[in-house]
Amino acid sequence: MGMIGGGLGSFIGDVHRKAAGIDGLIDLVCGAFSSTIEKSKASGEALFLPPSRCYGTYEEMIVEEKKLPAHERMDFVSIVTPNHMHFAPAKLALENGFHVVCDKPMTLTVEEAETLVLLSLKTGRIFAVTHNYPGSPMVKQARAMIANGELGAIRKVNVHYLQGWLSTAIEATGQKQASWRIDPKKSGVGGALGDIGTHAENLISYVTGLQLEEIAADLGIFGKDRVLDDDGQLLLRFTNGAKGSMSFSQIAAGEENNLSFRVYGEKGSLIWNQEQPNRLLAQWNDKPKTIYTPNGNKLHPEALAASRIPSGHPEGYLEAFANVYKNFALQFNAMEEGKAVDFDFPTVQDGLRGVQFIHAVVKSSQNNSAWTKLTS
Amino acid sequence: MGMIGGGLGSFIGDVHRKAAGIDGLIDLVCGAFSSTIEKSKASGEALFLPPSRCYGTYEEMIVEEKKLPAHERMDFVSIVTPNHMHFAPAKLALENGFHVVCDKPMTLTVEEAETLVLLSLKTGRIFAVTHNYPGSPMVKQARAMIANGELGAIRKVNVHYLQGWLSTAIEATGQKQASWRIDPKKSGVGGALGDIGTHAENLISYVTGLQLEEIAADLGIFGKDRVLDDDGQLLLRFTNGAKGSMSFSQIAAGEENNLSFRVYGEKGSLIWNQEQPNRLLAQWNDKPKTIYTPNGNKLHPEALAASRIPSGHPEGYLEAFANVYKNFALQFNAMEEGKAVDFDFPTVQDGLRGVQFIHAVVKSSQNNSAWTKLTS
Amino acid sequence: MGMIGGGLGSFIGDVHRKAAGIDGLIDLVCGAFSSTIEKSKASGEALFLPPSRCYGTYEEMIVEEKKLPAHERMDFVSIVTPNHMHFAPAKLALENGFHVVCDKPMTLTVEEAETLVLLSLKTGRIFAVTHNYPGSPMVKQARAMIANGELGAIRKVNVHYLQGWLSTAIEATGQKQASWRIDPKKSGVGGALGDIGTHAENLISYVTGLQLEEIAADLGIFGKDRVLDDDGQLLLRFTNGAKGSMSFSQIAAGEENNLSFRVYGEKGSLIWNQEQPNRLLAQWNDKPKTIYTPNGNKLHPEALAASRIPSGHPEGYLEAFANVYKNFALQFNAMEEGKAVDFDFPTVQDGLRGVQFIHAVVKSSQNNSAWTKLTS
Amino acid sequence: MGMIGGGLGSFIGDVHRKAAGIDGLIDLVCGAFSSTIEKSKASGEALFLPPSRCYGTYEEMIVEEKKLPAHERMDFVSIVTPNHMHFAPAKLALENGFHVVCDKPMTLTVEEAETLVLLSLKTGRIFAVTHNYPGSPMVKQARAMIANGELGAIRKVNVHYLQGWLSTAIEATGQKQASWRIDPKKSGVGGALGDIGTHAENLISYVTGLQLEEIAADLGIFGKDRVLDDDGQLLLRFTNGAKGSMSFSQIAAGEENNLSFRVYGEKGSLIWNQEQPNRLLAQWNDKPKTIYTPNGNKLHPEALAASRIPSGHPEGYLEAFANVYKNFALQFNAMEEGKAVDFDFPTVQDGLRGVQFIHAVVKSSQNNSAWTKLTS
Repeated sequence: MGMIGGGLGSFIGDVHRKAAGIDGLIDLVCGAFSSTIEKSKASGEALFLPPSRCYGTYEEMIVEEKKLPAHERMDFVSIVTPNHMHFAPAKLALENGFHVVCDKPMTLTVEEAETLVLLSLKTGRIFAVTHNYPGSPMVKQARAMIANGELGAIRKVNVHYLQGWLSTAIEATGQKQASWRIDPKKSGVGGALGDIGTHAENLISYVTGLQLEEIAADLGIFGKDRVLDDDGQLLLRFTNGAKGSMSFSQIAAGEENNLSFRVYGEKGSLIWNQEQPNRLLAQWNDKPKTIYTPNGNKLHPEALAASRIPSGHPEGYLEAFANVYKNFALQFNAMEEGKAVDFDFPTVQDGLRGVQFIHAVVKSSQNNSAWTKLTS
Repeated sequence: MGMIGGGLGSFIGDVHRKAAGIDGLIDLVCGAFSSTIEKSKASGEALFLPPSRCYGTYEEMIVEEKKLPAHERMDFVSIVTPNHMHFAPAKLALENGFHVVCDKPMTLTVEEAETLVLLSLKTGRIFAVTHNYPGSPMVKQARAMIANGELGAIRKVNVHYLQGWLSTAIEATGQKQASWRIDPKKSGVGGALGDIGTHAENLISYVTGLQLEEIAADLGIFGKDRVLDDDGQLLLRFTNGAKGSMSFSQIAAGEENNLSFRVYGEKGSLIWNQEQPNRLLAQWNDKPKTIYTPNGNKLHPEALAASRIPSGHPEGYLEAFANVYKNFALQFNAMEEGKAVDFDFPTVQDGLRGVQFIHAVVKSSQNNSAWTKLTS
Repeated sequence: MGMIGGGLGSFIGDVHRKAAGIDGLIDLVCGAFSSTIEKSKASGEALFLPPSRCYGTYEEMIVEEKKLPAHERMDFVSIVTPNHMHFAPAKLALENGFHVVCDKPMTLTVEEAETLVLLSLKTGRIFAVTHNYPGSPMVKQARAMIANGELGAIRKVNVHYLQGWLSTAIEATGQKQASWRIDPKKSGVGGALGDIGTHAENLISYVTGLQLEEIAADLGIFGKDRVLDDDGQLLLRFTNGAKGSMSFSQIAAGEENNLSFRVYGEKGSLIWNQEQPNRLLAQWNDKPKTIYTPNGNKLHPEALAASRIPSGHPEGYLEAFANVYKNFALQFNAMEEGKAVDFDFPTVQDGLRGVQFIHAVVKSSQNNSAWTKLTS
Repeated sequence: MGMIGGGLGSFIGDVHRKAAGIDGLIDLVCGAFSSTIEKSKASGEALFLPPSRCYGTYEEMIVEEKKLPAHERMDFVSIVTPNHMHFAPAKLALENGFHVVCDKPMTLTVEEAETLVLLSLKTGRIFAVTHNYPGSPMVKQARAMIANGELGAIRKVNVHYLQGWLSTAIEATGQKQASWRIDPKKSGVGGALGDIGTHAENLISYVTGLQLEEIAADLGIFGKDRVLDDDGQLLLRFTNGAKGSMSFSQIAAGEENNLSFRVYGEKGSLIWNQEQPNRLLAQWNDKPKTIYTPNGNKLHPEALAASRIPSGHPEGYLEAFANVYKNFALQFNAMEEGKAVDFDFPTVQDGLRGVQFIHAVVKSSQNNSAWTKLTS
């Protein structure tokens, strides 16, 4: 793995490195960690990398790594820069034969996203977008139960992703994560929408297997002097006739990382919250409520495969994130061995849908919440 | 108290009688419980009423009770019939000098609701609408905290009221509660909307003290052959600039009576769920989360006054309901003693707003979720 | 019902009256509420009783009521005085043909308790001890599941009853409930032990159907200048070979009314907490965890019979308490109608076992926690 | 790090490797993973170790590694074998100048444990025992609050550690973890006692800072044909006068890994459960309940230092375990740099106390639960 961005002090870079490392399948071998070669080398040194594998730019890294013998060079790039710096390195990596892991939202525009989809197809390189919540064992259990028809046809979906860290003008304090997220040049057209709304969209699409058809959105800006949304409410309609709602916010004072879905089918419902990820509540028309737990009784194989330790030993955010990396690594290992198997991780297609979602929400909100299709 | 409706086998009639009786302030003295005099007398007998106080019609009850000496006759009527039979008895009771307790939604039309508001003003009779959830001690604590500015200005409100009992075609089995609720002649223009959506509207209006300005609604009908909504999602805008969402359903399979709000202000948030009513979660920008409990530490007086027993001894649905009756009784006692005090219960004005809400939601949904004002 | 004790300002007297009244089966018709006739009449007046039915002593009440015609006089006495005043009125009531409801612990000594058991048998009068927690629907569900063998043989029982209200020297402030509870003349040999330890003992005996054989106890006194225990830990052995532990306390700072059991059988376990009484958690060797709720799916008839309102509408402390009164009333009604049915409520035998338990615990604790049999 | 035990298929070896690796401070460089050199090399290969660093015995590993240049050889051994194989390699490692990480219980006998304490002192090598639960951020917050006097003097401690995986005769199926744990030759005198009772003892000693003085124990054996305890209940007395109880079990059917403490002081209490580790409940005499979360508001520095990711992003078992390794590594790095700092991890002294605890419990239980001192 070669990392682009994620120098010292970066929250998400460290998360990616820990997540990639947990299962012992992936080694960090090089990086273009920062905007200057000096900073990049300093980060690399702290990560026990040789200076020769610390690059000043992603272009240099891709070019130089390509020259190395196959067994030495990086297998894939992991792009953990702010949003506006996803597209170019992703494109270049694909064009030079490297697989790609890219943070979300994948690109700033739908056109860029479509370009990456096509390029991934053309080059045959695999591409993961790090929506990490589908990596959680109980999310996989939910998906498997619904796919298996245990809830009957899905009728209603409620999802929320609520944080409070932008309740105050934290960006005025120079807080790094806040500063770029409120800047449309770096973040794109969505604020909280792009940062966490896309996770909510991805999560319900993954769990239900439904196609979101159109949305009606009301974005809000509560922080003084902000230009991007820090809050949003949505109505949802799915192609199968299901309806639903989404609420996301980064001004939900006191909330930490409250991402939760409720999915209702004809026969029952499933409720999950990422702050207590090791528990999936199922409710039924005609049976007592049931609670599933990782490595617990009567799970689907997909859920069992996503746990590392015995039931009752909590796994968390990093382990779920690691499952994205693990399946990505298993996928390209399988490819190299010529095996036709499909490991489960969010793909470039999911990334495209996320960008479509962002743009549809912004358009709807600008049109006083008119119903707007994701693809038009 | 003289009851209209609520004969043997009625769920809600029994709830009203228990709630009215708990605090020893109100006696059931007469009733027009059913559509025939025989059934009404049978119900009355089971309730230990003398046959002379069991009436065949509400008109007869109002006329005959009026003839009794003041200390003997009923003080007020409690109307617990299906929705289409609220307006006429309420009007007649007011016109004949009786106070009124009326189930929700108060009337089928906005015009009827306005008539009752005016009549209540004109006659000086007090009028309670039995939105019972504001009777819960922790709901009163939430309202008091917000009124006291502890959360700062309110920015966001999420509320849901989810039930699953209409997930299947229970009405086809002859289930009494289901049968009239799906019939627009008896229920009015709203299905789940009128039955529980109005509770959600009332709850957030009570807790936040905000005025709901406009809504964008998407009603759903999932039960085969139904003509009224059994599900709905709403976007909310309040006059102070706050935004929010509402989700209600009676096809949320497996849900029992999941009514919950989350209110976000500048400084903190409050979360409450009526299935665990004895706990109010507060979350803060700069303090650890706090949990308030009935009769627990550091409550506002309004919350303390609503509890009967020491902290840790759970009170429930009936006790919250009883608080509506208790405050209603204390109010008319105070009136008779000439005291100018205001006890806290949902009034005819709340009832009017609930009916306005129903009609605005239906109108918005018919206009493909266009933003629609509550009063126009 | 004629009440002994429970004058104005009494917590438990009010609870008994509300609980007895909820279901409309029992009327308060007379009382000897206080130590003087004036106070008793004042209490009676506030309860809308005629002065003629307010008595100065329990002896007078029993004698005078006995003279009234059968359809007028009280059916039973309800004794809600401090512990040292349970035995004499209970005895006199039985001797004069009245049924008895008595607060716990039933008597100060085992001999007194045995006397009441014999007298109840001899007179054929029924006798309820108000252990209210077995009145909770989910406790009845637990008992029915265990009786039905769903857990297999019971192996382990953990129970705790934790309160914090005696953490500080509240008795020094003149707080009425505290003052008599810490006084061995009024409370008997047990402090927290008699007040809440007996509830814990009764609850697990009821739920498991097991016989507690011997205990090893370590009582503690943490409040300055107290002479009775305010804390205790116990080891438990049951006659079937099951083992367990009990912890009770009134100096568990910050606890409100945390009564909870965990029962483990060969196949599964059940966990319940009275602060969230409307939920019973079942855990299994080979199935997902399940949650039962009042009036929810797949309950035993005993649990269904103990709920008044639809699932999801919480019932609480008063409703559970009311179930003791309701079944007591149904029992003596059945007796009068000559029907041989057994309604489920804590009897004089349970009261005797509670007193035996208190004395065994005190004895064990005095013997440095030596194993001590309940009956010896 | 050189690992002793933990070959392929070992649960705990894998946990140790992941935990040691998360923070990028520790590399696995060699191992004596299994009882044969072939198996050891196979495990090493799967872990990407060169064959030269895979040894057939721990003796060989210690001898050979010692010969390597300082910057190449392992810094410490990590011993993850069954209990009976802890002492000899730990002793040899210390004697040869290596630091030691050792699984719990540290040794089979008190004498062995004392030997290791003395040897660690004499050699100046540091020694960690992997009680992982003190690694949890909210456990550190609890310890810091108590040390800071926020609860006042501690009066009462309840702890339980409940698992159900030995409810059935799983050892008869050849399950590896079960087989050695029920064998006194490998496990020592304690069964569940040694395996999880010691964790419970360590946790409350760590959190409260109190010294456990004596215990009264009742061990149980419920599994057919077992000779070691699979269940136990204890009374606890601390040197400061506090009292308490402990319950542990591996036949608590349906429980997964339910380790929980409740600590009561004069002013308040703290409750934590490792199945929901990211939440610490505080209850107070005179304030609302509070909930602390990792990286949340108003934490002590010790708690903050133990979290890796923002509040609301759950960390779990592995991350807590990793904190033991991290602090151990920081400690020996500091030693090498000559810095006098004390990082917080369970030491050889904690290991000794754990072994004393096991023997005291067994002795008490054999003496029909007589009070027994930990050190005698």
